Amino acid sequence: MTETNKVRIAILGLGTVGGGVYQLFQAQADTLMAKTGLDAEIAAILVRDANKPREGIDPSLLTESFEDILHDETIDIIVEVMGGIEPARTYITEALKAGKNVVTANKDLMAAHGGELLDLAQEVGRDLLFEASVAGGIPIIRPMKQCLAGNRITEVMGIVNGTTNYILTKMDEEGMEFSDALAKATELGYAEADPTADIEGYDAGRKLAILASIAFHSRVTFSDVHTEGISRITAADIRYVRDMGCIIKLVATARETEKGIEASVQPMLLPVHHPLASVKDVFNAVFVHGDAVGDTMFYGRGAGRFPTASACMGDIIDVMRNIRFYCTGRIGCGCYRHVPIQPMEETIQRYFLRMQVVDRPGVLASIASVMGKYGVSIKQVVQKPTEEGRAELVLITDQVQEKDFLKALEKFRSMTNMIQEISSVIRVYE
Amino acid sequence: MTETNKVRIAILGLGTVGGGVYQLFQAQADTLMAKTGLDAEIAAILVRDANKPREGIDPSLLTESFEDILHDETIDIIVEVMGGIEPARTYITEALKAGKNVVTANKDLMAAHGGELLDLAQEVGRDLLFEASVAGGIPIIRPMKQCLAGNRITEVMGIVNGTTNYILTKMDEEGMEFSDALAKATELGYAEADPTADIEGYDAGRKLAILASIAFHSRVTFSDVHTEGISRITAADIRYVRDMGCIIKLVATARETEKGIEASVQPMLLPVHHPLASVKDVFNAVFVHGDAVGDTMFYGRGAGRFPTASACMGDIIDVMRNIRFYCTGRIGCGCYRHVPIQPMEETIQRYFLRMQVVDRPGVLASIASVMGKYGVSIKQVVQKPTEEGRAELVLITDQVQEKDFLKALEKFRSMTNMIQEISSVIRVYE
Repeated sequence: MTETNKVRIAILGLGTVGGGVYQLFQAQADTLMAKTGLDAEIAAILVRDANKPREGIDPSLLTESFEDILHDETIDIIVEVMGGIEPARTYITEALKAGKNVVTANKDLMAAHGGELLDLAQEVGRDLLFEASVAGGIPIIRPMKQCLAGNRITEVMGIVNGTTNYILTKMDEEGMEFSDALAKATELGYAEADPTADIEGYDAGRKLAILASIAFHSRVTFSDVHTEGISRITAADIRYVRDMGCIIKLVATARETEKGIEASVQPMLLPVHHPLASVKDVFNAVFVHGDAVGDTMFYGRGAGRFPTASACMGDIIDVMRNIRFYCTGRIGCGCYRHVPIQPMEETIQRYFLRMQVVDRPGVLASIASVMGKYGVSIKQVVQKPTEEGRAELVLITDQVQEKDFLKALEKFRSMTNMIQEISSVIRVYE
Repeated sequence: MTETNKVRIAILGLGTVGGGVYQLFQAQADTLMAKTGLDAEIAAILVRDANKPREGIDPSLLTESFEDILHDETIDIIVEVMGGIEPARTYITEALKAGKNVVTANKDLMAAHGGELLDLAQEVGRDLLFEASVAGGIPIIRPMKQCLAGNRITEVMGIVNGTTNYILTKMDEEGMEFSDALAKATELGYAEADPTADIEGYDAGRKLAILASIAFHSRVTFSDVHTEGISRITAADIRYVRDMGCIIKLVATARETEKGIEASVQPMLLPVHHPLASVKDVFNAVFVHGDAVGDTMFYGRGAGRFPTASACMGDIIDVMRNIRFYCTGRIGCGCYRHVPIQPMEETIQRYFLRMQVVDRPGVLASIASVMGKYGVSIKQVVQKPTEEGRAELVLITDQVQEKDFLKALEKFRSMTNMIQEISSVIRVYE
């Protein structure tokens, strides 16, 4: 702080989110004293090119030197909105060691190295807050760490990627195929030039790792999360699923069972009456089940300049309150247990299966018999003739261990005289 | 605290919620050190009759004397779950003055006297937390005070009464009339013996006063909230509303306009695609609009033993963290502005109007002409013949100032040769 007791803040990065944090801070600056008992100011902004003119930003704030920020003892809070693992990891580590508090929106970093960074923050008695790293502006981390702290949380699941939710909404509502819906999302700026991290579920997987660590008080990293994307989902799948009273969403789901933690991201059939089923377009929602509170859900905009800046600004205000009361570091990592991660094949699942089969007597019986052999029972089945001598077989199974289902599937692949194609395999919620 | 650094807690009241807090505390006690850095124990429970045997409760904890609790300097936290204004108000005041922290689930008290109690807490540097007072287990107060602190919140609206939401759900889904649905709610224990506070919107109004005070940083008390109940809603209204793409909910809504704060509870038409429209049965949800975050929603169980205890337990854990870091009182009342309350008749609304009219040429023209005179324009209209010479006229207006609409309504009441009955007048969202 300066001698006048003003909290001084440095922003690392001035992209979409960094610019949003700067603007929102300016809009809120005159309320900070009333909210926290302290005033604050932006002291520096780290950019790659300090000479590039930037509209609405005082050029004297721009710097290309992290070292200058690090060694400026009047800077109390670092807001890291650069993204990516390095140099963000090094910068945050050094900032904490220098006694600075950190606010970050960086899901990649928190999903991979959150444990070590939070341990360091605790060690040095500083705040490392990351509300913006999951589901943008939706309050979810603080509610889980504080409001629901009296619960044993058994399940957290969410729609935490806006790009894929927009694509699936278009496929569902307008009958588009995946590639057309992706093109539309790209055109509207909802999908990046390289959409891999979104459509393959990596982005959702990182957010899930962060959520699961908080929910179960045991560190879950991105590498612990099984991820599957939505590129193989077809308009035909979505039509069948609708007829069966369900909708397909890219669901990030983690639960704690007696055997350990299961964490996965995948397209999944949800019943249409499930609270997450009505989350449309780029909206996000996180569903949390606690033993005392029951089902809760948190809904809103999971990305974008100002929703993400809103989360950063909430964190900044919280750090300021802690600075005012000399209690930075009051809420630490929270991972005080070590629960093993359950491999996907050990989990219990239900499946939606769509196959192209030969339309002759005995085929369904043979398929049912293979399923029976591996302990897979059938809950719902629809068979429709397609072209001469062929039919489409669509079924939903009862709960079965994934490895048993995979054995049945392997057997189906060898039954080429009856099964011409396995068109879709999608997990079903509950 | 005791010499062993154990936080000591007294519970005032051992009804549904008090018993839930006790049970949940016992279930969570062994996690508290890991979560907060301190251990805790229940030191005393205030009851009316300490001799009455109570299953699962150590009888040595029971006391009939608040004075004993107040003067026990080892007690750090008071959990007030008695309900009602007095003696809760006096007890909380005295406890704060004695340097104790307070957790309360008491919406009646916080809606009427929250300002004075929070000011006192701030003065003495202690916590007064009340997450359980609104929407039971749903995290809403801390998210608004902390996560969304970087926003200017312009609107908060919610379904915050489970009893009425259950009744309206039954009326909507099963075509029940109000009295039958209320009987069903009573049978299931969702409605109290005297259901007035629920069905007349008083309970929701108290919760709204608390939410609005936090949202707008300006004190709103229950007496500032306009309340209307659901007892006049009929199955016929609900059928018409459905045909018009809407659903009727008891909505608690507060917004800040240029003229001031509007706060009201009333049955209201919501479009079926509004996020609150799909909140069914006894579930609650609170919808918050902030200038940066956009629309957010918080959903879950708004009442009941364990959901409410969950909120109290979250508050207890937060107070313990503050005790550990010597920073109790770090988040105060937050009402640093004084925004005037807007009288209901000054607000801008839309209306659903159902009338029994004489079925002859010129009647609709006369009604439309009256509306035109008072600046009420019609958005949607349906007229259906009912019996010989009569018709039912159902319409939805555009936005109009309430006082102008009331003038038109008064005029209609005098047009007895054309309008036989004004069956329903219900506000429409947006």
